[in-house]
Amino acid sequence: MSMAEWENREVFDIDVAASERALLRQSQLTKPPGSLGELEDAVVRLAGMQGLDCPACDKVHITVFAADHGIAKQNVSAFPQEVTRQMILNFASGGAAITVLAKHLNAHFEVVNLGTVTAIEHPSVINAFIGPGSVDFSIDEAMSAQQLEQALKVGCEAVERAKIKGADLFIAGEMGIANTTSASAIMAALLQLPGEKVAGPGTGVANEGVKHKARVIDQAINLHSNSLTSPLAVLRCLGGFEIAAMVGSYLCAAEKGIAIVVDGYISTVAAYLAIQINQDVINWMFFGHHSSEPFHRYMIEQLNVKPLLDLGMRLGEGSGAAASVSVLRLACELHRNMATFSDAGVSQ
Amino acid sequence: MSMAEWENREVFDIDVAASERALLRQSQLTKPPGSLGELEDAVVRLAGMQGLDCPACDKVHITVFAADHGIAKQNVSAFPQEVTRQMILNFASGGAAITVLAKHLNAHFEVVNLGTVTAIEHPSVINAFIGPGSVDFSIDEAMSAQQLEQALKVGCEAVERAKIKGADLFIAGEMGIANTTSASAIMAALLQLPGEKVAGPGTGVANEGVKHKARVIDQAINLHSNSLTSPLAVLRCLGGFEIAAMVGSYLCAAEKGIAIVVDGYISTVAAYLAIQINQDVINWMFFGHHSSEPFHRYMIEQLNVKPLLDLGMRLGEGSGAAASVSVLRLACELHRNMATFSDAGVSQ
Repeated sequence: MSMAEWENREVFDIDVAASERALLRQSQLTKPPGSLGELEDAVVRLAGMQGLDCPACDKVHITVFAADHGIAKQNVSAFPQEVTRQMILNFASGGAAITVLAKHLNAHFEVVNLGTVTAIEHPSVINAFIGPGSVDFSIDEAMSAQQLEQALKVGCEAVERAKIKGADLFIAGEMGIANTTSASAIMAALLQLPGEKVAGPGTGVANEGVKHKARVIDQAINLHSNSLTSPLAVLRCLGGFEIAAMVGSYLCAAEKGIAIVVDGYISTVAAYLAIQINQDVINWMFFGHHSSEPFHRYMIEQLNVKPLLDLGMRLGEGSGAAASVSVLRLACELHRNMATFSDAGVSQ
Repeated sequence: MSMAEWENREVFDIDVAASERALLRQSQLTKPPGSLGELEDAVVRLAGMQGLDCPACDKVHITVFAADHGIAKQNVSAFPQEVTRQMILNFASGGAAITVLAKHLNAHFEVVNLGTVTAIEHPSVINAFIGPGSVDFSIDEAMSAQQLEQALKVGCEAVERAKIKGADLFIAGEMGIANTTSASAIMAALLQLPGEKVAGPGTGVANEGVKHKARVIDQAINLHSNSLTSPLAVLRCLGGFEIAAMVGSYLCAAEKGIAIVVDGYISTVAAYLAIQINQDVINWMFFGHHSSEPFHRYMIEQLNVKPLLDLGMRLGEGSGAAASVSVLRLACELHRNMATFSDAGVSQ
């Protein structure tokens, strides 16, 4: 598939009639109109995505995309690079936050390794190796055009697996030490903002560390300035394999008509790229939570969306999106199982 | 029990050592420190309440207290008074929002009728009749001292049932047409604020209706001004039976050491009264959600708490608190089941 084809994928039509029927049903349930707030909005949107008057979110497909980042060499993370690999093994053995949440939600969970510096062979890790991590983008382009295409395709393949399993919701999570620096550099490039505006603490660097991240970003954008000509070019120069895979997964989920729950900062950056490529993709997205990474709020305002949860989480892995599934499930349960005014003989 | 005894109930000690052990465990789990945000804070608090390093919220006890309000005669609600009775029957048959949520959460649910204008006999409704609704407080005191004591005791009895069943969490919900007017009058009296500051749309009265509610409140406070000498006196003059029962339930839950999840506006007014009576009661409370009733945000700021959810709900019944249980359960699951850094061999 050529780059142009990634830029011209279709987006599945929302079933507006199903949404309208769901909205009508909400008005008949035994409660003051609108009193379930965002739970009503969510179920009405989900009805349109699924083409069902009573939508469901029982079957959740969670894919964590993981990869190493060359930019980690610039000392931009609170954790050493080998933590990417260690955490992939922690996902495989079920000890990480996202795997605990996935089990609790009875969700299908998979972790896909697009490329760690030290290779991983493990029966519970899907191997999609495209290189031993991205290149340090303070020195050169983060990945080749071929690697970008491969990474986008890895994302798409995860959605194809979700589709085959009949998933009601798709969640992409990520793991990659230093990937907030990559994500922030992407946003600085897309919005033409200085590094200090977009850089934040990530998993926990302190004040001087944030300033250092900002400088690394500014220098990288200066280095690549002639190449940052499109969202996909920005992704290639400054991104990471797992961020590219998320972008691919969002484009494909919207094409195949699977509802997406976007996670926190990194995930929202991938969503932002996908929306830049095709603005209709946003119609297939729920936003799971407000990240406490400072620039996330700015992005949420830019996108004019309101995430379901605001719990001060900043973990990644898809954990905030997974947490919000419990809220989406409440919305579906209420919509499906509440009595109508006429059923219950309640005055309207 | 005399009024003085209600004002001098003990509050069970928080197990600070258990909280500290839970905090230590959080620091050892495979995630950046603090990255689970409020989920960490919640589980650490719950550990202290339950005296357990790994607390639980599997067993949830939900009691909806219901009663009619004489003030409904003043045309302050969007719904006719018979809806109180109709909704009690809807709770009994499982068609209301709170009953759908209770079933989804596998919670114990009960509805207690403290007094509707038209009596209810139904095998699934606990009958705790203390009068055919409260008196119209624009004319006279809402209830007698004896009725107040009875209502407080009804709340306490619900907590005793929860205790016997080994409940991990207690939720009080309410139903009573016109009870936002009663709740707002209570707050106006406690905080010495004009009616226009506290009155809101409730279940859906429009602008003129809100102004009318404000005038009704101002006139009532003027009428009772010499009697509003203590929180319990305010509750007696301006409250409703179900609000009094909620106050009683909160005082008793804190005394018996059961964690409380406070619901929205009416419930937070009852919580506010309980905290006015004994400030340590707040140590036993989680706040489930931000109500979209405007004065709720002011109260939340006054209490210096942050509710777990902010979904624009304004339904009452305990629905927002019940919704938040799913978040508390995620917090407990993560705390219990995530690997530690040393378990997983992840660098710290």
